[in-house]
Amino acid sequence: MVVNVSLAVSFKCLECGKEYPLTEFVYSCRACSSKGMFRGSLDIEYDLEEAKSRLSKETLENRKTPFWKYKELLPIADESHIVTLGEGNTQLIKADKLGSSIGASNLFLKNETRNPTWSFKDRVFTVLVSKAVEYGYKTIGLASTGNAAAAASAYAAKAGIDCYIFVSETTSTAKITQMLMHQAKVVKIKGGLTEAGSVSTEACKQFNWFHVTTGKSMQPFSTEGPKTLAYEIAEQLNWEIPDNIIVPVGGGDTFGGIWKGFKDLKEIGLTNKLPRMVLAEAEGAPLITKAFREKKQYYQVPPIEPHTIAAGIKVGIITGPWPLIALNESHGLAETVSDDEIVEAEKLMAVKEALFSEPASAAPVAVLKKLLDNGKIGRDESNVCIITGSGLKDIDPLEKYLEAPPMIKPDIRALKALLEQQKQ
Amino acid sequence: MVVNVSLAVSFKCLECGKEYPLTEFVYSCRACSSKGMFRGSLDIEYDLEEAKSRLSKETLENRKTPFWKYKELLPIADESHIVTLGEGNTQLIKADKLGSSIGASNLFLKNETRNPTWSFKDRVFTVLVSKAVEYGYKTIGLASTGNAAAAASAYAAKAGIDCYIFVSETTSTAKITQMLMHQAKVVKIKGGLTEAGSVSTEACKQFNWFHVTTGKSMQPFSTEGPKTLAYEIAEQLNWEIPDNIIVPVGGGDTFGGIWKGFKDLKEIGLTNKLPRMVLAEAEGAPLITKAFREKKQYYQVPPIEPHTIAAGIKVGIITGPWPLIALNESHGLAETVSDDEIVEAEKLMAVKEALFSEPASAAPVAVLKKLLDNGKIGRDESNVCIITGSGLKDIDPLEKYLEAPPMIKPDIRALKALLEQQKQ
Repeated sequence: MVVNVSLAVSFKCLECGKEYPLTEFVYSCRACSSKGMFRGSLDIEYDLEEAKSRLSKETLENRKTPFWKYKELLPIADESHIVTLGEGNTQLIKADKLGSSIGASNLFLKNETRNPTWSFKDRVFTVLVSKAVEYGYKTIGLASTGNAAAAASAYAAKAGIDCYIFVSETTSTAKITQMLMHQAKVVKIKGGLTEAGSVSTEACKQFNWFHVTTGKSMQPFSTEGPKTLAYEIAEQLNWEIPDNIIVPVGGGDTFGGIWKGFKDLKEIGLTNKLPRMVLAEAEGAPLITKAFREKKQYYQVPPIEPHTIAAGIKVGIITGPWPLIALNESHGLAETVSDDEIVEAEKLMAVKEALFSEPASAAPVAVLKKLLDNGKIGRDESNVCIITGSGLKDIDPLEKYLEAPPMIKPDIRALKALLEQQKQ
Repeated sequence: MVVNVSLAVSFKCLECGKEYPLTEFVYSCRACSSKGMFRGSLDIEYDLEEAKSRLSKETLENRKTPFWKYKELLPIADESHIVTLGEGNTQLIKADKLGSSIGASNLFLKNETRNPTWSFKDRVFTVLVSKAVEYGYKTIGLASTGNAAAAASAYAAKAGIDCYIFVSETTSTAKITQMLMHQAKVVKIKGGLTEAGSVSTEACKQFNWFHVTTGKSMQPFSTEGPKTLAYEIAEQLNWEIPDNIIVPVGGGDTFGGIWKGFKDLKEIGLTNKLPRMVLAEAEGAPLITKAFREKKQYYQVPPIEPHTIAAGIKVGIITGPWPLIALNESHGLAETVSDDEIVEAEKLMAVKEALFSEPASAAPVAVLKKLLDNGKIGRDESNVCIITGSGLKDIDPLEKYLEAPPMIKPDIRALKALLEQQKQ
């Protein structure tokens, strides 16, 4: 007999509270989803009372397997279904030099660039692909061109299942290459990401593929992996919860997942404080900040055409309730920053902490600087910025922000002349 | 008073055996270096007798800091000089699916892509930059466009010292971007890597910069960081030494360093076996394999114009004695593979183990397959392939090996037609 290692008990609608058994997969609440697009998001409920008796600080600290050591709080019942590439347990960098240059006395960077596919999405896809296996799906499908596509194709390869990825017609060859190397089935869709998303949704429905497009209300498990960011941060800080967690937000599943994780820890009794959740958006993709400030529901904000160099947070729709839930419950902060501020922060992080991140990952650092400067965050508060992905993922947009290197003849005198000139 | 944590005792010439004190830096043996280019390589000698009393398996296993836990066997005397980004302690993947597809029953991949700058060069540069700091240098200089340049610029940023990088005039903007983000001072030199190398050497001499171009006889510390690969592999395999260690080789410092590391462990008494060192080169850059088979000295092989898509091993000179020393002492094997074989192995690794590496890192897998097929390695032997760097580092050459994805209209009927067509 298989032992159920997970304490997950049901799907629960975030709008009406209706519960559904986990035995059969449902994308969204049947009643609420009819109210409109992205409505009727389901959350995963756990038996946290039971977790209290099973999980102590010592139990968790003594387990050596990263990520899946939190198996009771993850939704995979049968351990043999777990598809892992050794994700998680990423560094928490004490960033004193970066901190002092922006005026924060207590700053940490959670370095998600050191995951197997070099981004935080590995936490999402170890859960989603394991769950696909557990439900018996032979194929997953999604629309993405970024970190999610890379992670999905890698985990599907590891599981030996098919992975269909729908991309816009303008997607660069470099981005597609990583997917193709993992033998994902990539299909270009004429038009943009919206068209790719529609085909993906429809294909998953018609062909019974497991739909894993993240940042959408329709994949209830996509907040589960990111909870482990909260668990790891707490453990790495010796169970002292920092004042602020600052996260770059596209869809907001990760933002919501981290918040859910911190709530779990407090409810289980492993910690006694909750952090404030701070949401970082680009000025050209500011919808959640706008909705939060205007006290609107996520579905009341009309789509826009987003523009920012930070691909990971270039999103023009709000695809679910999670970011606003986390902001409201944590009495959080939402802030936007310009592309110039993002690149400035990316450079600062690369110089002060030698950490080269993708532009989206620099947004939290830029937001933190802004909130320190305007006094919304105190200089002695403790802060953790989530650094979501490697700088190698998104290099091209940086070119125009950097000065092209000088070219000289292969002659030491030419170099001496150059150095003299640079001194002046 | 500062405690000297290192057991390094002297520089020692690999040709004539003459020793030099570590207190003053020397690039190469004064007598032997006059015999020709790359002659007079110095090695670092350690007091391994003292190491026997200080280092037990338990001592090492109980230390939690990766990489610098081996501080007695690394050349930094004063721990306050250590410049670290949390490198090392990378995964050792048990690659059963890849193994069975190439016919190896016992295969491991040492996943160096999860280092801070996503390559094995972080091991080299945590040592070189720390040593630059220890000797009081304010500037490092090197010629490189690849993993070494990325690592050098990151570690120099962390140390707060200047880093001059000399690159050929054709170096792509994408490669230079990472260096510039870390505020390295990049200078393009008209001509190729040879010209860049000459300017680098001359500049370091004239301006008293610490020369860190790796794969050259003149930087004696460049074999030291890679020794930790041997230490980690041994510890991860519970001190059971594998039969074969298969390494992609450009300059050969890493190949030599790994061999030196395994010899250390045996001499200290932590292990009782030495592995066979297997060297992987590209068919278009086969100089060490050629020298080994023809029983030539490294300096007897004339330079060639190398050609291969695997940038990390595209080297047309033999820059030092290390690879041949390791091959001879370990009764090793050297083998070359074609670009087609390299890309085939890279795909296989990405599909079977979901590990996306740069082409150079796939060469050991291709070589292993070849040596299994021709019987030079037995199918029941145990093998560790060193996977040196992330696939994100070198994506462009793959395009021509991959089929471009199909493009369809945003319509489910178009997708159905495509899937039907693909079935046939």
